[in-house]
Amino acid sequence: MKTPLIDGLQYANWSEKIFRQMRDGGLDAVHVTIAYHENFRETVLNIEQWNRWFEQFPDLIFQGRTAGDVRLAQESGRTAIFFGSQNPSCMEDDIGLVEVLHTLGLRFMQLTYNNQSLLATGCYEDDDTGLTRMGREVVAEMNRVGLVVDMSHSGERSTLEAIEHSSRPIAITHANPASWHKALRNKPDTVLKALGESGGMFGFSLYPHHLKGGSACPLQSFCDMIARTAEMMGIDHVGIGTDLCQDQPDSVVEWMRIGRWTKKIDYGEGSAAAPGFPQMPDWFSGNRHFSNIAAGLKAAGMDEDDVAAVMGGNWRRFFEKSFGAEAEWKMAGAAGAGA
Amino acid sequence: MKTPLIDGLQYANWSEKIFRQMRDGGLDAVHVTIAYHENFRETVLNIEQWNRWFEQFPDLIFQGRTAGDVRLAQESGRTAIFFGSQNPSCMEDDIGLVEVLHTLGLRFMQLTYNNQSLLATGCYEDDDTGLTRMGREVVAEMNRVGLVVDMSHSGERSTLEAIEHSSRPIAITHANPASWHKALRNKPDTVLKALGESGGMFGFSLYPHHLKGGSACPLQSFCDMIARTAEMMGIDHVGIGTDLCQDQPDSVVEWMRIGRWTKKIDYGEGSAAAPGFPQMPDWFSGNRHFSNIAAGLKAAGMDEDDVAAVMGGNWRRFFEKSFGAEAEWKMAGAAGAGA
Repeated sequence: MKTPLIDGLQYANWSEKIFRQMRDGGLDAVHVTIAYHENFRETVLNIEQWNRWFEQFPDLIFQGRTAGDVRLAQESGRTAIFFGSQNPSCMEDDIGLVEVLHTLGLRFMQLTYNNQSLLATGCYEDDDTGLTRMGREVVAEMNRVGLVVDMSHSGERSTLEAIEHSSRPIAITHANPASWHKALRNKPDTVLKALGESGGMFGFSLYPHHLKGGSACPLQSFCDMIARTAEMMGIDHVGIGTDLCQDQPDSVVEWMRIGRWTKKIDYGEGSAAAPGFPQMPDWFSGNRHFSNIAAGLKAAGMDEDDVAAVMGGNWRRFFEKSFGAEAEWKMAGAAGAGA
Repeated sequence: MKTPLIDGLQYANWSEKIFRQMRDGGLDAVHVTIAYHENFRETVLNIEQWNRWFEQFPDLIFQGRTAGDVRLAQESGRTAIFFGSQNPSCMEDDIGLVEVLHTLGLRFMQLTYNNQSLLATGCYEDDDTGLTRMGREVVAEMNRVGLVVDMSHSGERSTLEAIEHSSRPIAITHANPASWHKALRNKPDTVLKALGESGGMFGFSLYPHHLKGGSACPLQSFCDMIARTAEMMGIDHVGIGTDLCQDQPDSVVEWMRIGRWTKKIDYGEGSAAAPGFPQMPDWFSGNRHFSNIAAGLKAAGMDEDDVAAVMGGNWRRFFEKSFGAEAEWKMAGAAGAGA
């Protein structure tokens, strides 16, 4: 069977149109954000909405729970939807919700979203104090049940401590190297190297604020950067995490940035002059454009196997070792996981 | 493999002692009440407590989700724990929570607990107006996902309408025939016959208020009653649902009766003179005494196969056709289900 095409993060304004574009683009699996600042009950409401979409569009999408569901997606011509949260607000202050959320299908959870959380420090804080007391407990619980630690929006120290403390490989699902484009959300080489050495995964982001040159970033600049990063981290540890926010109104990026933590406006990666969602690069405006990236990687000198690995093979292997209970993972030979 | 031993309802003050007694008594599976008046978030807290017990006592118990887990319990020498709620308060006013609760493992839900609910009328109300508008919608949703409608605490009309409206067989997990012992919680023959004809299941209760003679009810009176009811309903449609509330303090029966719906005391099946839990019959004080019932059924003239069917075989078959999605159930040949 062909290597699957997998996107490590999207947060679209979901609709039948977008689900059909996923099929047009041959997307076999995608990690979707189901919550930012939502508390547990609000996250469950979002899951209820997804359940209705699964019921409404059974020929296009279904809920992914295990790595095996990627294969099921390929065999049945549908896209497997894997849930994630960009903030731990969904688990409130209750470690017992980690397992409950995993049972409901959550497969990724960021320990922070830009700000300090109960668990760690976000990449927009002045001082990063690393994993908190609760953060260490929650990482261990996430390891136990098979919920991936995602540090895309965390600070450097917190990220390095999460890599160190986690008994299982972690992910940065959507970001780029700061050495290519300096931004609070992009990651220093210290983090990239530690992530690769620990068997973790890095997903390259198409969100214009993470791109050198923003919306005008050329495809080849992006793909050359991927090739260079793959050399530094190891080809097995990189994938795509588009951060595609298709069809979202600008009110949503405002909610993403301020949630309920401030009464003032905060522009995050934007500015007063450009407060809304930035325009996507013309070579990636949605789910039908993954083939452009694959072509760009080839033009960057990657061979066919490496391109397939970046476009989904690596995520699939990461899913295989990440979504099951730790006890099963250890029995299956965890030793190879950090290789 | 031996026919399994299954109890159709318990609500004990759970402890390692009780889990060990389940093993001593050879109990392969049990439907446990995880919520009475709890709302969704409180029900999730109760699930979190169960998750801790599953983590703490993996050699004694595990969460049952499918009928196949009864076999797994037999093979691994453990008791499979199936969740249920005695009231629909866990789903609040939100039909989307039906699927969410099923995903979390809920396999039985009563439409009412003595009082009028959003869905139907309880057996303590003066007037029973049957299934409500929302009740009909929720029964259809329960049918779709594989959550069993349990009418143990509902009124006669509501129960008959649930049997009629439900596309899948329903259950009365814990009650006795009113013709044997008149009580608001025991069921008239109209209900028993309709339940049997529709392929449903009736679990006989050991709760003393449901027994002729109360705590002093002789074993043989109970078992003779089962044999007579099996003749009326069909041997395939009866099982045990002990309603065992082992080790619970009397404050719990008060909570069961009044929850948050009244500020006054309500004695339910008890009285001011006897407000607490009644004493169990000496021939069934806990999970080690199932063999007494099996012996009593034999003494009532039942052959070995029928005794095995009542002690668990019928519940297992009911689990097989009840816990999966309706679409799968129909594919597997639902036509036989009402036989």
